[in-house]
Amino acid sequence: MKGADFALMSPGEARRLIRSGEYASPTPGMARGYVQANLVVLPKDWAYDFLVFAQRNPKPCPLLDVTEPGDPEPKLIAPGADLRTDLPKYKVWEHGRCIDEPTDVMKYWRDDLVGFLLGCSFTFESALLDADVPIRHIEMGRNVPMYVTNIQCIPSGALSGPMVVSMRPIPYSLVPKAVLTTGRFPAVHGSPVHIGDPKVIGVSDIGKPDFGDSVPIHEEEVPVFWACGVTPQAALMASKPPFAITHAPGHMFIASVKDSNYAIF
Amino acid sequence: MKGADFALMSPGEARRLIRSGEYASPTPGMARGYVQANLVVLPKDWAYDFLVFAQRNPKPCPLLDVTEPGDPEPKLIAPGADLRTDLPKYKVWEHGRCIDEPTDVMKYWRDDLVGFLLGCSFTFESALLDADVPIRHIEMGRNVPMYVTNIQCIPSGALSGPMVVSMRPIPYSLVPKAVLTTGRFPAVHGSPVHIGDPKVIGVSDIGKPDFGDSVPIHEEEVPVFWACGVTPQAALMASKPPFAITHAPGHMFIASVKDSNYAIF
Repeated sequence: MKGADFALMSPGEARRLIRSGEYASPTPGMARGYVQANLVVLPKDWAYDFLVFAQRNPKPCPLLDVTEPGDPEPKLIAPGADLRTDLPKYKVWEHGRCIDEPTDVMKYWRDDLVGFLLGCSFTFESALLDADVPIRHIEMGRNVPMYVTNIQCIPSGALSGPMVVSMRPIPYSLVPKAVLTTGRFPAVHGSPVHIGDPKVIGVSDIGKPDFGDSVPIHEEEVPVFWACGVTPQAALMASKPPFAITHAPGHMFIASVKDSNYAIF
Repeated sequence: MKGADFALMSPGEARRLIRSGEYASPTPGMARGYVQANLVVLPKDWAYDFLVFAQRNPKPCPLLDVTEPGDPEPKLIAPGADLRTDLPKYKVWEHGRCIDEPTDVMKYWRDDLVGFLLGCSFTFESALLDADVPIRHIEMGRNVPMYVTNIQCIPSGALSGPMVVSMRPIPYSLVPKAVLTTGRFPAVHGSPVHIGDPKVIGVSDIGKPDFGDSVPIHEEEVPVFWACGVTPQAALMASKPPFAITHAPGHMFIASVKDSNYAIF
């Protein structure tokens, strides 16, 4: 099967292929136009603090769906889907340490587990590309560069930590367009949190991202920083919950709602 | 003191006046330009379902702040304020029945109580008036008409119920402006949920609102319906939590953030 075939699949077809075990690779490019989401699964007694953390820090924590305890179906964004089988790869965590990277989590599922699906930057990147704003790391086939900043999230219970941001170099003339285009998606990270001098947000060496790959910034370009979905996962893992499941990086959940549904309406 | 004095007060001054016990009247018109919020206080073991209900139904449940259990200070939207004393009138509920309407709730406060502050339509009404969209019930000095619809909210645990909407008659030529103006405030009810024939959303007699006062709709006008903050309170009260505190109608919490801060950015 070629890339174009994956791109033209419906979300349901993509999830069935993944569920069958025949596809265990990263999801970017699959079911083009549909939302891909980060997964965090927590025991109910940790879910409250995570929910409040997301409410207090909506830019880095764009919550799209929360499942009922024990129920693996994300009814809001993908009726009929199963969070235990429909992602190509997972990470299973105990006390902040990854103990397994399975392709399904049937054997780990429990009646007290709550699934959280959080929006990711793929949604606003599609909008940027549609608006002819170039995205360097996509052009170069690299992962987006991400940085830990000196912007502190508002804590909730056991959860606290700095905001992590992703950076895209944008030509000066396109910065307002990039702000307005992503600002139309307040439910999925929204507009940038910083534009320009990286030192202002505590990033001392733009060439050395904390996560992902570095990309060059050309002379007529400005580094533009958006809140990143790594933020809640980093805050969570730092607090070492006894048990958690997340997606493996790049192996996202493919939802049945279109990216364009998250534009302001 | 005259109305103009109340309008020009800072939020802190307004809260201090209310806290002192010298002011126990409705808050509309006070500290003009600043957010007024609905209050719901619940025991921690009911807070989770309420949070998830708000996440699943963001248009009727625009959550602006959630306090730490036992802490009466809404740190996000009004640092230094005290939810136990800073509203002019409260309702105290036991098993869905109102047992008291005090002017402070010091004697009812407990270590397990969580405060939820929810946006109200005053915020987008200011924006409509600034955009020269007339608002009939304000012109007439009446309460906004509200209706129970056939639109079901997405349930969460014990909480479920129909969406309640508020209605404003808008001249045909101003409907797009009213949609775009309120759409800029996705965090505070956002754009309308329905425009036109009330029967489509299960409202059989527009002249008989379920809450508030009726207002006339003139020939060149359309009834426009917005999700209403009464929705979560109605869902909550129907499920009869053992204990709850809310604001008394019209006696809102005055926050330290400006209405304009909730426009998309």
